[in-house]
Amino acid sequence: MSIRIGIVGVSGYGGGEVLRLCAAHPEFRVVYVAGEGSAGQKLSTRFPGIGEIGGLTIEKFHPDAVAAGNIDLLFASLPTGQSAEPLAKIPQRVKIIDIGGDHRFVEGWTYGLADAWPEKIRQSTRIANPGCYSVAAISALAPLVAAGLIAPAPIIIDAKSGVSGAGRGGGSTFGFAEVNEDVCAYGLFKHAQQPEITKGLARLSPAGSAAPSVLFTPHLIPMTRGILATCYATGSATADACATAARDFYAGRSFVRIVDDPPHTKWALGTNLVFISYAADPARNSIIAVSAIDNLGKGAAGQAVQNANLMCGLPESTGLLAAPLWP
Amino acid sequence: MSIRIGIVGVSGYGGGEVLRLCAAHPEFRVVYVAGEGSAGQKLSTRFPGIGEIGGLTIEKFHPDAVAAGNIDLLFASLPTGQSAEPLAKIPQRVKIIDIGGDHRFVEGWTYGLADAWPEKIRQSTRIANPGCYSVAAISALAPLVAAGLIAPAPIIIDAKSGVSGAGRGGGSTFGFAEVNEDVCAYGLFKHAQQPEITKGLARLSPAGSAAPSVLFTPHLIPMTRGILATCYATGSATADACATAARDFYAGRSFVRIVDDPPHTKWALGTNLVFISYAADPARNSIIAVSAIDNLGKGAAGQAVQNANLMCGLPESTGLLAAPLWP
Amino acid sequence: MSIRIGIVGVSGYGGGEVLRLCAAHPEFRVVYVAGEGSAGQKLSTRFPGIGEIGGLTIEKFHPDAVAAGNIDLLFASLPTGQSAEPLAKIPQRVKIIDIGGDHRFVEGWTYGLADAWPEKIRQSTRIANPGCYSVAAISALAPLVAAGLIAPAPIIIDAKSGVSGAGRGGGSTFGFAEVNEDVCAYGLFKHAQQPEITKGLARLSPAGSAAPSVLFTPHLIPMTRGILATCYATGSATADACATAARDFYAGRSFVRIVDDPPHTKWALGTNLVFISYAADPARNSIIAVSAIDNLGKGAAGQAVQNANLMCGLPESTGLLAAPLWP
Amino acid sequence: MSIRIGIVGVSGYGGGEVLRLCAAHPEFRVVYVAGEGSAGQKLSTRFPGIGEIGGLTIEKFHPDAVAAGNIDLLFASLPTGQSAEPLAKIPQRVKIIDIGGDHRFVEGWTYGLADAWPEKIRQSTRIANPGCYSVAAISALAPLVAAGLIAPAPIIIDAKSGVSGAGRGGGSTFGFAEVNEDVCAYGLFKHAQQPEITKGLARLSPAGSAAPSVLFTPHLIPMTRGILATCYATGSATADACATAARDFYAGRSFVRIVDDPPHTKWALGTNLVFISYAADPARNSIIAVSAIDNLGKGAAGQAVQNANLMCGLPESTGLLAAPLWP
Repeated sequence: MSIRIGIVGVSGYGGGEVLRLCAAHPEFRVVYVAGEGSAGQKLSTRFPGIGEIGGLTIEKFHPDAVAAGNIDLLFASLPTGQSAEPLAKIPQRVKIIDIGGDHRFVEGWTYGLADAWPEKIRQSTRIANPGCYSVAAISALAPLVAAGLIAPAPIIIDAKSGVSGAGRGGGSTFGFAEVNEDVCAYGLFKHAQQPEITKGLARLSPAGSAAPSVLFTPHLIPMTRGILATCYATGSATADACATAARDFYAGRSFVRIVDDPPHTKWALGTNLVFISYAADPARNSIIAVSAIDNLGKGAAGQAVQNANLMCGLPESTGLLAAPLWP
Repeated sequence: MSIRIGIVGVSGYGGGEVLRLCAAHPEFRVVYVAGEGSAGQKLSTRFPGIGEIGGLTIEKFHPDAVAAGNIDLLFASLPTGQSAEPLAKIPQRVKIIDIGGDHRFVEGWTYGLADAWPEKIRQSTRIANPGCYSVAAISALAPLVAAGLIAPAPIIIDAKSGVSGAGRGGGSTFGFAEVNEDVCAYGLFKHAQQPEITKGLARLSPAGSAAPSVLFTPHLIPMTRGILATCYATGSATADACATAARDFYAGRSFVRIVDDPPHTKWALGTNLVFISYAADPARNSIIAVSAIDNLGKGAAGQAVQNANLMCGLPESTGLLAAPLWP
Repeated sequence: MSIRIGIVGVSGYGGGEVLRLCAAHPEFRVVYVAGEGSAGQKLSTRFPGIGEIGGLTIEKFHPDAVAAGNIDLLFASLPTGQSAEPLAKIPQRVKIIDIGGDHRFVEGWTYGLADAWPEKIRQSTRIANPGCYSVAAISALAPLVAAGLIAPAPIIIDAKSGVSGAGRGGGSTFGFAEVNEDVCAYGLFKHAQQPEITKGLARLSPAGSAAPSVLFTPHLIPMTRGILATCYATGSATADACATAARDFYAGRSFVRIVDDPPHTKWALGTNLVFISYAADPARNSIIAVSAIDNLGKGAAGQAVQNANLMCGLPESTGLLAAPLWP
Repeated sequence: MSIRIGIVGVSGYGGGEVLRLCAAHPEFRVVYVAGEGSAGQKLSTRFPGIGEIGGLTIEKFHPDAVAAGNIDLLFASLPTGQSAEPLAKIPQRVKIIDIGGDHRFVEGWTYGLADAWPEKIRQSTRIANPGCYSVAAISALAPLVAAGLIAPAPIIIDAKSGVSGAGRGGGSTFGFAEVNEDVCAYGLFKHAQQPEITKGLARLSPAGSAAPSVLFTPHLIPMTRGILATCYATGSATADACATAARDFYAGRSFVRIVDDPPHTKWALGTNLVFISYAADPARNSIIAVSAIDNLGKGAAGQAVQNANLMCGLPESTGLLAAPLWP
């Protein structure tokens, strides 16, 4: 049996990573690929390292083609604002995972945080994949919020991302010569994922507790892939108590690793893994949670394939077991 | 059925890449890992992203352990000069692939250029894996030499390598702050792989033709993985004729891609692929062959696993089909 | 007139940057250079781009040589723990700037924060140059602390540094292949510069106010030079009010630039500049100060030369006016 | 006395580097800056690290403004094809240095290879600055050609460049995520600087000798600044003989350093230096010349300022003595 897969937005970084993962997935068969700038190209021209499925040609995305193509599951990775309309035209029997930001917290769509509520995802046909920063931040803080180990405020999240998170395009702003040997903060107090993180954590808060108040600052650093989220919260728990809460919270999950020392993003390179460590100074009532992911893996395409596995009744780790590149 | 694998030198870059590939290999089971500096550590501590086989502990290498451990195939990735003695003590029934440089062109060992003479490798129990530069250079030039399309001299190979090729250690010479934003040539006229390339090409020369004379200049560039070999030769063939010769030479091989435009090393990142392009100016009697590999993939561990597959009677691409990281 | 300069620890990154700046300084003449590993080498061999002063030979450091050499001012950049003893033997008439960490907050030594208390430095003969992280953090927060615009706690400083901050040596830990495409946090709750920052800010607090409580988390990111400090504090001031306080605090200083948007470290590359921006959300009682420096410039050698200028009665910007590299 | 300087194309990498150098030049005063995309911006907004001259506003380039502005010398750094027309309208009394490619080998313009024929440049008012690759290649080969030490063919130049050489713009082709961890060759047999190098070398060939035949292959490597040119030629001279010829050829020149071992591009970072080494294997009749420059320094703006100094009767090194960044 093989599940027929479509990928929309395949020439972007997120869509390209979905393709890479699907190409090696034992149960998925990619039968439809669509892209904007690359429409008309052979898939193997656009992706010289992609093998057997290179016979496909990249098409211009049209919702009718999805129904006509007998597609079982569609990954959509479109720019913000461009997915709501076309995806509404896809028949309900086609499962959809929207990697873009348009359907997060939209009714009828499940927020696809696979490690937090896998059961909900198993029963969904419409998944809004979470933002890359949100995955990193919520993964680290979820166990603490759920266990009531940290105060709802202040929660400060200082995140460092590789530039693939900004997507392709962007001209010289993300040009090598300008990004190399540079780091900067952006979106202070107003990044779109600040409310996303807040809502995600609110869903995990014990009933009756105050809503979390999150302050989120993203940074761009000179690397291609990876997000490190350093999260500062208030609480008197020890690091061990935090780690124990996290191991309980993530019991049975395949991709979450609770580690003793602060993790490196490189440990996750090319994978769907998330590494989390906790440090605490109870005397100062202070807890630091650090998480490391590949922003295109657990932060986008890896998470999307994990969600797809769950939706299709497969083991969540199917096709996602390749170890990280080192070095 | 699963083949019992040992890896010696697992904490180096080459050994680590063998581990990464074997961890995802459907027919190989890693049962023994040895390393110098990391002996005594749990494998999962040294490699946080390695999963199911993390229960192993890294041992100090001892030849007797290989026999006692009922190992079927041993990958050895030891520093130059350190493998001849211990490997001589391994029973003949244990297949060995030496990724280090000690057994290249030694009697009783097959030079492991898997894409050039797979049959010889299928029948061998002792393989000397080729050097990373040699793989890149010979892969590009082999079809031209075999078809008599280029003169035996001069053949100039100008190669650019990421610094993982230098191995771990090396202190500040390969420190980030010194390598970043720098490029240099080294080993002019006297790099150890100059004679290796020469011998490799000589074996492919038509009977009776003059021995090739190779001039090889390696360069270090600020990246982690990848080798690009730009090879200059004399001949009146067109680029198309060269490409056709190469497609014939590599007919049936899984990992060689002859492409129209000069390849990028990134196309091969994390894989066992080799990309080759040809350009020519017949009026000037000049041919340029360009090849791109991952020095730790086709240039070391990928080639080693391909050799292991051949030695074990498996399809050569078993466990090696993951697509390259992009971006 | 030219001031006779000695540099100890010239083969390290901090000492090398002092040399680079002194080589172009119109009033300084380098007459003595000492280094550990490089002793015996010609200066021009070790530093191929250094011109006229290349005739010097690097010596093994001996305190007597400083007196004998008629040196007016000595820059010392030695590993932690190695400067107290030899520097104690230098005659009092020789001005000393210790770039290492041994004399910070030691009696008889002035903490060399040139932009905060230039007058004190003008009158000193012994300067303990501040740590690179401390310069970045204190520069951003000093105006807010001095004006009482932020609460003494919590003050969270999340800093991102290029790897030259770790100095030379360190083996593969700071090797290109391991640092490239990686980011990590380290020293949580216990980095040596956490108390340094706390003490530095305490000196600037208005009389009678509570001592600041600082939480400091450093990160290593894949670049050579630069520190970005993102500082989170509590207060109801607007961003404009913070910027105004900073412009007042730094009135007349040559190297401090208060900017509207979060600065890039690249703006400071190779210079003694520090860029600072403020953002605030008064409704949430929250202030973010961001500063960007070159860790070897304002964070080490640039600051040291600025201090030397002040000690020698020169304009503070003498020899420090080169614009940053771009790109 | 101060010379009034105009810079056209200031928001590109070449123009920006001219600005950086002029800002620290003791005899030059920048009074006019023009740019395309940045017109209307304050210079200090575009270049946050530029100091005293930040009061200028970037204008849209108009030739009349140059005459009206009483400008003595104009640096033009415009895209290919866009400088011939406007520069023709500049009065003859205004000296011009065209950093772009439009006037190389055009009558009435001197090809501005400052280290090869400084006298010619001193007497010129119109200078066509050489291409960055050409500077690297010709600098290394000029002494050998002039002394008749190498055969006119084959001369193979394999050059490796940082991506700032491609200029700003270019979108995702030169995006960080795509350039990082990648190397590729381009323009095989047909790069525009292949004939430029050939003509440059021909001018240096002894009368009556055959015209040189150059094969030039450029590569892009993941760094911002720097070109390394590895040049292969035929000849029986020893390395020492080549070095001696080079020292003679460049006697009295400020920026050329003949070194024993292959140079690193980092030695030239941010400077107008060129480092050259020679290796030879007389038994094989083979010579390798390697040169290293900063493509924006000696390869563009540094050379331009050196030319400007010569044209203005100043010492050629005025304002160009800053030492390279290390690390």
